[in-house]
Amino acid sequence: MTQVVLIASYLEPEYVERVKQEVPEVEVIYRPDLIGAPRFIADHTSRIERTPAQEAEWRQLLAKADILFDFDHTHRDDLPELAPNLKWIQATSAGIGQFVHRMGYAEKTDWIFTTASGVHARPLAEFCIMSMIMFAKNYPLIEQAKAERKWQRFGNTELEGKTAGIIGLGRIGRDVATVCKFFNMNVIGTRRDVTKTVDNVDKLYAPDDIDSLLPDVDYLVLATPHTPETEGMITAERIRLLKQGAVIINIARGAVIDQPAMIAALNDGHLAGASLDVVAVEPLPENDPLWDIPNVIISQHSASTADSENRKITEIFIENLKAYLNDQPMRNVLDTKLMY
Amino acid sequence: MTQVVLIASYLEPEYVERVKQEVPEVEVIYRPDLIGAPRFIADHTSRIERTPAQEAEWRQLLAKADILFDFDHTHRDDLPELAPNLKWIQATSAGIGQFVHRMGYAEKTDWIFTTASGVHARPLAEFCIMSMIMFAKNYPLIEQAKAERKWQRFGNTELEGKTAGIIGLGRIGRDVATVCKFFNMNVIGTRRDVTKTVDNVDKLYAPDDIDSLLPDVDYLVLATPHTPETEGMITAERIRLLKQGAVIINIARGAVIDQPAMIAALNDGHLAGASLDVVAVEPLPENDPLWDIPNVIISQHSASTADSENRKITEIFIENLKAYLNDQPMRNVLDTKLMY
Repeated sequence: MTQVVLIASYLEPEYVERVKQEVPEVEVIYRPDLIGAPRFIADHTSRIERTPAQEAEWRQLLAKADILFDFDHTHRDDLPELAPNLKWIQATSAGIGQFVHRMGYAEKTDWIFTTASGVHARPLAEFCIMSMIMFAKNYPLIEQAKAERKWQRFGNTELEGKTAGIIGLGRIGRDVATVCKFFNMNVIGTRRDVTKTVDNVDKLYAPDDIDSLLPDVDYLVLATPHTPETEGMITAERIRLLKQGAVIINIARGAVIDQPAMIAALNDGHLAGASLDVVAVEPLPENDPLWDIPNVIISQHSASTADSENRKITEIFIENLKAYLNDQPMRNVLDTKLMY
Repeated sequence: MTQVVLIASYLEPEYVERVKQEVPEVEVIYRPDLIGAPRFIADHTSRIERTPAQEAEWRQLLAKADILFDFDHTHRDDLPELAPNLKWIQATSAGIGQFVHRMGYAEKTDWIFTTASGVHARPLAEFCIMSMIMFAKNYPLIEQAKAERKWQRFGNTELEGKTAGIIGLGRIGRDVATVCKFFNMNVIGTRRDVTKTVDNVDKLYAPDDIDSLLPDVDYLVLATPHTPETEGMITAERIRLLKQGAVIINIARGAVIDQPAMIAALNDGHLAGASLDVVAVEPLPENDPLWDIPNVIISQHSASTADSENRKITEIFIENLKAYLNDQPMRNVLDTKLMY
């Protein structure tokens, strides 16, 4: 029987066409009138208010879908009931473990989940190195001098010889390591399996040996998935183990770090800065103290939202679709136990 | 006769010691009490008000100096008269051609000038790539959202596939090219001799063919020396030849570009941004319109002022000192005709 692919979030028409052309044996349904319009490039979480007629139509499509491109954010809780034929969801994000867990999908269904892991690695690595250089160059001072219209030469530093500590050496962490090594940094990091070497990483630490890693770190990059083990792993004590003047870059999830402790360390000067793509509560509340700290960069969970995103996700999806139809191994299959 | 080396701007005691130890056959004079105290790391242009006694002492030192480490910024005009034995000045900057020309040193003396070329290449390359990623990530929007305490996801882009146009492929320009190529950019640039290839540069243009290069450029990097030929080379017309949404990064000299025309192009949106380490008049006057443009980074001629600077300059100086004493070719000798 022809497999039905339902595209559940915005995708540019050219990429929809590409799926149809490259995998003609499936039926691809894309109804932009029934899904949310993107608010920005590669927006996969926009909402829509459907009329009753539209909603009925959407439910009919869900009922016949074998494969979903992206989660249906208009039917999170009742997706298992509304999509009884569903066998596989291709996500548009890499960090879906906690969401799948919270929704109980793994318990309620035997769906396969494939992530968009890899798509965001290079944009996030660019964000990390941008953040590192900005703090090396004392960008907060540049910003302040501009506000005060004050030209004054100042000393700064460079990345060569500095130490990047990367927590989590998955696809993204390894890409960050590659970029750091290119800039002649020392690169250390954590990894479950420390018996294998990782390219561009000078020294590996087991996750429970993170306390030995922290004192050497100039730039701490959090690139770990959000799991029960990593939740709150960067405690107040561990923030204090970092070098005086260290910088924290969080491209993981806000829950990985004790945010009030980080704010305290920024305010008393123990940390020279923080570059946060993610925070504890998103959207960051208007009255959050983070907004007020000059040496904090807040990139609003958009550091990985590059205009190449949908092209790359489409490429993964097509590859996986071909593999799925031919019973071959798929890329980026979520381990619903490890949650990444 | 023992050659006398006079150190004419601030240098850390450890580097002074290093010169003494590695080249024991010269007499090294370093009198921090008679030269300006640094206002920032690797400050080589600070001023000092000497007492008459101090000034007399300094003039005695100048009178016996064979070699100067750095120009004497307290005696620019009368240096040829005050230092009759002088044969060689090791500068602490790369772009000294215009200064030497303005002072008439080349006409009045037969001094050798060696520059600090190379020392600033990596810090400047870091500044360039930081600037490129900041505009790719729409940093002005990040900054504005923070000021407004407004969390809102937004689309942006990445460097892969973008085109860097590098005007001037000397030491610094080539280092910028290397970094850009690492980020999978297309790299094009200008060079006097287009018959030889340059590593990491996809296409070379002669300086007078710059009009053919500009329409392809997303990020224009000005890394050319300031010479009569490059003065004002980026005219209003040439700024308009750049792609809509292009970004200008100036690490050369402010005089290379028509600054009012650049400001107009920033204000009407033809340019998406500018990252300026240098400007037409330094210090930038308090009432200059550049201060007010949100998508302009002004790094106050400090992008290359890294804390590794004096170590690297000392290494060049020691190498040159040994070469000088042994009549061997020195590094970074200024061509007083070409002025770089």
